[in-house]
Amino acid sequence: MTVARTEGTRRGEFDLINSLFAPLARRHPAALNLADDAAVLPPPEGGQHTVVSMDTLVSGVHFLPDDPADLVARKAMRVNLSDMAAMGARPLGVFLSVALSPAEGDAWMDRFTRGLEQDLGAFDVGLLGGDTVATPGPATFSITILGTVPPGTHLSRGGGRPGDHLWVSGTIGDSALGLRALQGDLAFLDEDARASLADRYRLPCPRVALGIGLRGLATAALDISDGLSADLAHLCRASGCAARVSGPAVPLSAPARDCVSADPTWLDVVLGGGDDYELVFAAPPGRDAAIRALGDRLNIPVTRVGALVPAAPEAPDTPLVWVLDGNGAPLTLAATGYRHRWE
Amino acid sequence: MTVARTEGTRRGEFDLINSLFAPLARRHPAALNLADDAAVLPPPEGGQHTVVSMDTLVSGVHFLPDDPADLVARKAMRVNLSDMAAMGARPLGVFLSVALSPAEGDAWMDRFTRGLEQDLGAFDVGLLGGDTVATPGPATFSITILGTVPPGTHLSRGGGRPGDHLWVSGTIGDSALGLRALQGDLAFLDEDARASLADRYRLPCPRVALGIGLRGLATAALDISDGLSADLAHLCRASGCAARVSGPAVPLSAPARDCVSADPTWLDVVLGGGDDYELVFAAPPGRDAAIRALGDRLNIPVTRVGALVPAAPEAPDTPLVWVLDGNGAPLTLAATGYRHRWE
Repeated sequence: MTVARTEGTRRGEFDLINSLFAPLARRHPAALNLADDAAVLPPPEGGQHTVVSMDTLVSGVHFLPDDPADLVARKAMRVNLSDMAAMGARPLGVFLSVALSPAEGDAWMDRFTRGLEQDLGAFDVGLLGGDTVATPGPATFSITILGTVPPGTHLSRGGGRPGDHLWVSGTIGDSALGLRALQGDLAFLDEDARASLADRYRLPCPRVALGIGLRGLATAALDISDGLSADLAHLCRASGCAARVSGPAVPLSAPARDCVSADPTWLDVVLGGGDDYELVFAAPPGRDAAIRALGDRLNIPVTRVGALVPAAPEAPDTPLVWVLDGNGAPLTLAATGYRHRWE
Repeated sequence: MTVARTEGTRRGEFDLINSLFAPLARRHPAALNLADDAAVLPPPEGGQHTVVSMDTLVSGVHFLPDDPADLVARKAMRVNLSDMAAMGARPLGVFLSVALSPAEGDAWMDRFTRGLEQDLGAFDVGLLGGDTVATPGPATFSITILGTVPPGTHLSRGGGRPGDHLWVSGTIGDSALGLRALQGDLAFLDEDARASLADRYRLPCPRVALGIGLRGLATAALDISDGLSADLAHLCRASGCAARVSGPAVPLSAPARDCVSADPTWLDVVLGGGDDYELVFAAPPGRDAAIRALGDRLNIPVTRVGALVPAAPEAPDTPLVWVLDGNGAPLTLAATGYRHRWE
């Protein structure tokens, strides 16, 4: 029952499910071909625990309305896969809720479905269920993802201890700069550089294999969605620590380095912008070699960027995350409004 | 990272989660106090299977923008609980994705949270996780619900056989009539009658205990969201049957009876309107007494409304669902546009 139906050049809900989604669901028997009211999953093998997370993307908020539909689907998948990576979980399947506005016609949904299929295959996860509704507002995609971990091995945010080294995967800041490029900024970069940053905004690379490999190595981890500084503050708060990060050690791509060289204030966007979907994690110094070996084996860059230090509970206003310059001084770019501390 | 933030007199995402949702999540350890990237659930006891479903409600589409916020929360919960009922699953917990427009301020969210808490308690389910985002469109609530069933006992849509009796719980059509009452129709009813129908629209009553009790009794079941006729057609299609329903046997509340007496065309809304969230189910005739005893024990009305009959695969255009009048003739109200058959 609906108060009002939003009409468009679009298949109805049943057609959408039958024609587009049901074929994708065939690869997993738990989906019951999307023909029932729910999916039914047997217990994971070996007593494993189930890890569940949910993330929603709104058109115009989390992606641009003119982003290609297949990349929208893949971004929705990858944002959720990144939560599995942050937990050290092996992704199992997704539930997809699709709220469509009149702007998303059949051609848009066909392309969306192709993107969905591509990443279901690439990450070997099943489409287990979901629903489709009409909305008079912007298209909204909500995914619930299920994964598995052996008991007691999931990565949390709260296990970091003073002295642990801090690491990040990949490069930081490309996505936030990519959004600026898509919005018409960064004209001083050449077209290829802008396109490479935009690609990182549209299509994050969730570090699923790294998360699984970090079980037993990392004491704390999370994925960077709100920005390295903000997400590291979450890790610090949960771990009861503070963090010191070496600004020059933070790994930047060549286009990001060009941005910061051209104008150091872009470092604010790099460290605070978010949407990286890289992992930031802590581990005792004795595991440095194992972590480097893991990165080499997976061909995923991992970079040591700092360390956890004791928090100052007697001074609750003390910042949790300090970014230091090459001389070990707190990085301040006061003239440009650059924040030297975050929480 | 967001393209644009929708500002309002509202707490930020972290505040919303910390101040409103985290206290509700304390009742279930798997939620990890909503402080991590995901929930972690141990395997269900006794090798049970996990049943998972997802349903989304959009303001102005699935509820009225001026519906009380606590009832919006409870309706979102109950629509999802109804899917567990349809599967015969015992609800375990929910994940809640909240997309808020500027219209939903702190007071609205406080009231929403109170409704959420009320139904989490009433149905003994945990708040396990979720996310909050801003939207420039209508408020949108997506819930993923998890439940459990012993292996092989879930109710499906596809197990019905010719000869099975067809049953419904509760009364049919109140919710669809209630929406009409809220929209200013049904002026010929007195105020109490209109209010009682409106209550059924705003606050469905998911038949969770009945669904669990029907394990081993019902051969097929689903919950009525699209309307008795349409949902029964889903059951027929999945079961490879057709259905004959006695129109006069369909249980109506007193206000619904008054509507149909005043104008028989309201029967179209009763049978086709939807949002009932009652169960429609099939069972062999030998189980009639057991089903009546179950309804008595649970104090949930169950009414036999018809039977499954062989489909006519040689005539694919034959309707799957026939509603018959008191004389056994197909019910036709052609002059009023009443549809005498559905699929």
